[in-house]
Amino acid sequence: MLIRDATAADWPAVWPFFRTVVRAGETYTYPRDIDEPAARASWMLEPPGRTVVAVDASGTVLGSAKMNPNHLGGASHIASASFMVDPRYRRRGTGRALGEHVLAWARAEGYRAMQFNAVVETNTGAVALWRSLGFTIMTTLPEGFHHPAKGYVGLHIMYQQL
Amino acid sequence: MLIRDATAADWPAVWPFFRTVVRAGETYTYPRDIDEPAARASWMLEPPGRTVVAVDASGTVLGSAKMNPNHLGGASHIASASFMVDPRYRRRGTGRALGEHVLAWARAEGYRAMQFNAVVETNTGAVALWRSLGFTIMTTLPEGFHHPAKGYVGLHIMYQQL
Repeated sequence: MLIRDATAADWPAVWPFFRTVVRAGETYTYPRDIDEPAARASWMLEPPGRTVVAVDASGTVLGSAKMNPNHLGGASHIASASFMVDPRYRRRGTGRALGEHVLAWARAEGYRAMQFNAVVETNTGAVALWRSLGFTIMTTLPEGFHHPAKGYVGLHIMYQQL
Repeated sequence: MLIRDATAADWPAVWPFFRTVVRAGETYTYPRDIDEPAARASWMLEPPGRTVVAVDASGTVLGSAKMNPNHLGGASHIASASFMVDPRYRRRGTGRALGEHVLAWARAEGYRAMQFNAVVETNTGAVALWRSLGFTIMTTLPEGFHHPAKGYVGLHIMYQQL
């Protein structure tokens, strides 16, 4: 698996699984009916943000991550990131590889911490992965997320100093 | 004191104290060198956001608040808000009146919670005010804010269910 900067030519490969995951509405705080231009604008970042794709040996896009400052001004040393793995290619370590890549980027860019603003507590695979990569659940906003099947569930804020 | 919707004609009264407070860099996560167009774009919100001003009997703008969804999609029932009081008119209850107004707005709009993402822990007056209005410090991001005089200090995330 290779992780490299995303280009405009990668978006047509990302959008179908982005749409699938966001339409399901179980794990992300994007509008579930987001259209393609809005999705592209939110995902394909310009500096100081950055977007990468994870590709396999044949060039197939397995997943993507974006990374960016979480705050501005006096808190601009805190980074954020988001991750999307194609459901067809789960359980290949793509999320972990993207997470490790993003943490390395944040350290190299001089960020002092990374904060995830909204990790749905029922997304237990992601929660376990981020914990294994050093993140702590700082708090859980009660009833912070409305899950389509489970109703109101908690929304974790996860953080680690770098 | 009257709290009413802000119009474009109010911005010239807001910008000088917005600039003063943001340049001081002690309490907000705006870029300290933010220019006037960027400040106006970030403060004067369109629906579903809203911006208000607090004015005295002579029409002088004492302070302003903006309110908006904090998240989208499955967490769009969480509101956020920001407050700015002219330092020349502190200790008149403007912050409290704006806070009460914003909470009433959020309830009326059907939000189920309000979350403040970045309350600098050394801004003790604001922390005490928000606590008195029902907010809880959910967590404090260690070294989350770089204070120009005090160095790295904590950044509170405050929340209340409505």
